Amino acid sequence: MSSSQLIYGLHAVQSLLRRHPDRVLELRLSQRRDDPRVRAIEALAREHGTKVLRVDAQALQKALGEVAHQGVAAEVLPLAPWSEDDLVGALGLAQNPLVLALDGVQDPHNLGACLRTADACGVLAVVVPKDRAAHLTPVVRKVAAGAAETVPLVTVTNLVRTLKLLKEAGLWITGADGDATRAAAEVDFTGGTVLVMGAEGAGLRQLTRQTCDHLVSLPRLGAVESLNVSVATGMLLYEVVRQRSKS
Amino acid sequence: MSSSQLIYGLHAVQSLLRRHPDRVLELRLSQRRDDPRVRAIEALAREHGTKVLRVDAQALQKALGEVAHQGVAAEVLPLAPWSEDDLVGALGLAQNPLVLALDGVQDPHNLGACLRTADACGVLAVVVPKDRAAHLTPVVRKVAAGAAETVPLVTVTNLVRTLKLLKEAGLWITGADGDATRAAAEVDFTGGTVLVMGAEGAGLRQLTRQTCDHLVSLPRLGAVESLNVSVATGMLLYEVVRQRSKS
Repeated sequence: MSSSQLIYGLHAVQSLLRRHPDRVLELRLSQRRDDPRVRAIEALAREHGTKVLRVDAQALQKALGEVAHQGVAAEVLPLAPWSEDDLVGALGLAQNPLVLALDGVQDPHNLGACLRTADACGVLAVVVPKDRAAHLTPVVRKVAAGAAETVPLVTVTNLVRTLKLLKEAGLWITGADGDATRAAAEVDFTGGTVLVMGAEGAGLRQLTRQTCDHLVSLPRLGAVESLNVSVATGMLLYEVVRQRSKS
Repeated sequence: MSSSQLIYGLHAVQSLLRRHPDRVLELRLSQRRDDPRVRAIEALAREHGTKVLRVDAQALQKALGEVAHQGVAAEVLPLAPWSEDDLVGALGLAQNPLVLALDGVQDPHNLGACLRTADACGVLAVVVPKDRAAHLTPVVRKVAAGAAETVPLVTVTNLVRTLKLLKEAGLWITGADGDATRAAAEVDFTGGTVLVMGAEGAGLRQLTRQTCDHLVSLPRLGAVESLNVSVATGMLLYEVVRQRSKS
């Protein structure tokens, strides 16, 4: 079992206390902070019977490093990884589920950055293949800036098979492809959606590409061959959120 | 003076030969490649009197490392940095210029990633303050994947003063701000635009924020406090490109 993690910041801690109160072991508040937002978080913790500690601001800084902790941190139990069954089970509970699949992203910084963006964009889970791909390591957790504790990672043996399962469950599969002629904004993302991103350099594998309902391209007005995969993921997730917040 | 750089890939090399033929010192083609796209690039080079070498594919791989070079590389002179005057002069030549300003981004990986995305999204130039910010280093050039040779970097003494100059030149200044209530899609980016991104963690400085015409927020549906600055930059640049390709 991996040990507990420290999550910090008003927004992050409040969100965790709301969504996963059972995973919060302890709330740490800076002695200096006593404003309405901090009091609201403290009340939320007490409501769930969570232990609340008032600590020295410097102790908080020491435990967290040079980050904008806003005087609030929470010790949380790590998020258990999901199985394929967990994922399929969760689809039924979500309205228009949004799933991110990474087809062989190997750089831990890119996986961490994708998790962080996935969290911000309301992604239900991130799916990665078991082989030839980055998995949850301390580097990934650090780059994810807390998102590894909030977005479930699903490691699957056969990504194409999982995509087909998601398709059968009613989700539409859209892959990012440098050679596609369709822009992302031309695809409707308001329903259940799976976004599939290819590996750095190589892009989507042939079988993955064939499993997609849509292939879309991202901006490519310049000289550089391709976008960084975590930036490309951010653009596509942004497009999904944009379309959904409009409707 | 920094030495020449190797740019690779069909798209990148073709784009450089079209836009900056004078900066291409030498074209290197894999002996194995002899298809229409490679022949078109070779013809373009010969048209400009550029030296063309046919090289062993392994030699190309050795010079470039594990990248998708597609059998094509070009040795190019580095792009000279722009002064503030160069930037203001270039505004008049561009239609609806798009400028990216980074308000104290210190991580070289983030600067490199922003340059790479700026290239893909047709950004005219990237503006950074002289102090407390990352500048062009080998790491930045590497992460930029060639974009440091195509997107001019403008280092300025006083970012707010430069933003005001850009405003006087008719551009609208939009800053990304976690606390903004307006979504990026609600702002019109089809005219001359400056996007301003804040430093990692700290965000926009107070004076920079006050200089902006618009402040916009990016997706924040999850628990994590903020997006990575290079991902946030990608989302905003995507939004600009989306709006412009629609009109």
